[in-house]
Amino acid sequence: MTLIQKLKKGNVPGYVKNIARCEEVSESFIVDKILKGEVVIPGNPLHKDKRFTAIGSGMNVKINVNIGTSGDRSDIILEKEKIELAEEMEADTIMDLSVGGDICRIRRELISKTVLPFGTVPVYQVAASKQYESGSILGAGESDFFSVLQQQAEDGVDFFTIHAGINFEAVDRIKKSSRVLDVVSRGGALLFEWMEVNQKENPYYKYFERVLEIAQQYDITISLGDALRPGSVFDAGDELQYYETLVIAELIKKAKDFDVQVMVEGPGHVPLHKIEHQIKAIKDMTFNAPLYVLGPLVVDSAAGYDHINAAIGAAIAGYAGADFLCYLTPAEHLCLPDINDVRDGIMAFKIAQQAVNLSRGKRAVLDRELKVSQARKKRDWDEQMKLFLDNKKAMHYRSKLPPSISDTCSMCSKYCSIKIMDGHLSKNTESAL
Amino acid sequence: MTLIQKLKKGNVPGYVKNIARCEEVSESFIVDKILKGEVVIPGNPLHKDKRFTAIGSGMNVKINVNIGTSGDRSDIILEKEKIELAEEMEADTIMDLSVGGDICRIRRELISKTVLPFGTVPVYQVAASKQYESGSILGAGESDFFSVLQQQAEDGVDFFTIHAGINFEAVDRIKKSSRVLDVVSRGGALLFEWMEVNQKENPYYKYFERVLEIAQQYDITISLGDALRPGSVFDAGDELQYYETLVIAELIKKAKDFDVQVMVEGPGHVPLHKIEHQIKAIKDMTFNAPLYVLGPLVVDSAAGYDHINAAIGAAIAGYAGADFLCYLTPAEHLCLPDINDVRDGIMAFKIAQQAVNLSRGKRAVLDRELKVSQARKKRDWDEQMKLFLDNKKAMHYRSKLPPSISDTCSMCSKYCSIKIMDGHLSKNTESAL
Repeated sequence: MTLIQKLKKGNVPGYVKNIARCEEVSESFIVDKILKGEVVIPGNPLHKDKRFTAIGSGMNVKINVNIGTSGDRSDIILEKEKIELAEEMEADTIMDLSVGGDICRIRRELISKTVLPFGTVPVYQVAASKQYESGSILGAGESDFFSVLQQQAEDGVDFFTIHAGINFEAVDRIKKSSRVLDVVSRGGALLFEWMEVNQKENPYYKYFERVLEIAQQYDITISLGDALRPGSVFDAGDELQYYETLVIAELIKKAKDFDVQVMVEGPGHVPLHKIEHQIKAIKDMTFNAPLYVLGPLVVDSAAGYDHINAAIGAAIAGYAGADFLCYLTPAEHLCLPDINDVRDGIMAFKIAQQAVNLSRGKRAVLDRELKVSQARKKRDWDEQMKLFLDNKKAMHYRSKLPPSISDTCSMCSKYCSIKIMDGHLSKNTESAL
Repeated sequence: MTLIQKLKKGNVPGYVKNIARCEEVSESFIVDKILKGEVVIPGNPLHKDKRFTAIGSGMNVKINVNIGTSGDRSDIILEKEKIELAEEMEADTIMDLSVGGDICRIRRELISKTVLPFGTVPVYQVAASKQYESGSILGAGESDFFSVLQQQAEDGVDFFTIHAGINFEAVDRIKKSSRVLDVVSRGGALLFEWMEVNQKENPYYKYFERVLEIAQQYDITISLGDALRPGSVFDAGDELQYYETLVIAELIKKAKDFDVQVMVEGPGHVPLHKIEHQIKAIKDMTFNAPLYVLGPLVVDSAAGYDHINAAIGAAIAGYAGADFLCYLTPAEHLCLPDINDVRDGIMAFKIAQQAVNLSRGKRAVLDRELKVSQARKKRDWDEQMKLFLDNKKAMHYRSKLPPSISDTCSMCSKYCSIKIMDGHLSKNTESAL
């Protein structure tokens, strides 16, 4: 039974009750949201020892960490290190985007390694399989698209990105469009190519019910991929983006009939002035389903710093209602990220996440932020270090201080405003929350 | 004569005409904005060989780089390197916040070193002077506050931060407030202390006309400092912040009588959900004067990453109408920044700046962004490198690629969506602007 089926029967699993507490909402609130399709809790029972997490309206915003090999760089040890780091840094989910090496073995090892909900983009495996006649995705038959789903479901994958929104009509619209960058989704481009060369409809669209049957059997959450997401700020909010969102809305209705949990993937590249209304429009169009955004990036020119570029967009998107933020690393658009890139990407997104959850009034977040500022006021550095999002980096900076400085920092030293004020005021700020 | 006096007589300096071109506005538009007090072009004629820049409504948003020594670390070579870096990275202005070493000599050397408009916070010199009886700011007489202005004006400082908004009533309100962090402005705390111990009104408030006389004589732009800016997200938008803004509004009216250019300094620390309306409210209350924000930081807990934290706030503030973004470095709240911290801080703010100017529809910015995405579509890496905000870092990443890769990156390699699409579509995107 899927989670939705259980809830419909009035059977609320223990993990849902725990999540309600963590999310600072009532059990009935979260159950209602899941039944309405506004919150998902991905969870394939075959992924053992998993930490469940809720994604959607009224919850804390979550962050996803992409990992995975590429054709030119396939090092499972490195990918495992990335998972360890993501867990240590308290990211919420992992997606394995591997396309290089023995990707089935890699996936199995990575799933068994992590307690975080684990997602994949199954069409990558269709593409990376060498068993077809042509040796590429072009040789894959319709059934291959589904056997991969079956295999990954059995491996314990918790959520699938399925690019089911790119159908024949979308392909036709792409050809007529004046986009700067047509299709920047890897899964979208692979499906476009398969459809064009084989002159067949996207199997994930045409036989979406088969996707849902597998998802239902293994209680897998479907993340409806945005094959037509803008890959340039100039393409944000164009006809293709909204057309695909309408197709996705139809697919959400079908998923409801199967009691399968669904989220929606969103942009991409979006300039500052279009983020808020686009996020809200997509949420409107998709019945307030959980929205999973990739950044978005607010400029196209910041390669090497796309983690910062995307964290700006993610904070605004999260504030506007996006529920799930896919991190980007500084290596985006340039190369496969190494472990330091992953660390930088997660940190940038943890700041965006904290900012969004603060704006949502989540008490645990407010509490941590208040304690930081109270410790700052007391110039209690030990306490501040315990509360900073990354105390290692903060301690590294502080270790540079001359030994003569104990209670201030070296930027202002004896002109520390807080210390000056402390000499003249003493007040109780415990009640500020 | 001040710029405003010249413009009132119909005399438009050549640099104003040049700026109008760079800002993609007409000469009459910018002249009108300066006369209304909505745009400033700081420029003390004693600062020779200077690049003029316009700050305010309808202009490109600008970024400021703070540099300067502290009591524990005073290395003029390092500060000069920071200026060189700021110029190389195309920052717009410099502020020297030095409080350590021979700050008068340091200031003179730094001004003569840079073509960028140069600002200071003169009260720091009042505080750092050892000539008073008590050896601290407490021993300074009222006239000392003005002799410092005179001296710095003669040195060629282009704009002064003057904390004239913290008056007796503000001090009284601070004592009664329930703020988490009372006064986090260094200048504000120094003035608070001086006022409290000497039981005298803030000289910059009481004798604001004397400030204006000096500013008028040397055509110095006054940046009205926000002594009461929030230093914690919990203090954002409180009574103190708005009270000071009202005082500042009164001072703006006085400056108008002296034909002195004025800008307003703003927060500080502001949570995501309060940035837009606070920026707009401050602009309303201050007659749409140019607004200069410090970040703002969107959380209190990101020490070590406050450049990213602040870039998020700066992008949102700039989009909401802030005109001038003061960068922060990763060392903020921890120690005096080194050259790498300055680089990281400038880059984070250049991304925020580019994002804001893109949202304002500035053609030069649109053009660069479009060219990046067009080059990305062509997989023309040489062209992309020319256009990235920091091509050195991007090239460093690209240098890690295996030699087998030429036209894609190693994240997707043969599954590059752009390359796949290129095989099936070929379109002209030159007309996208």
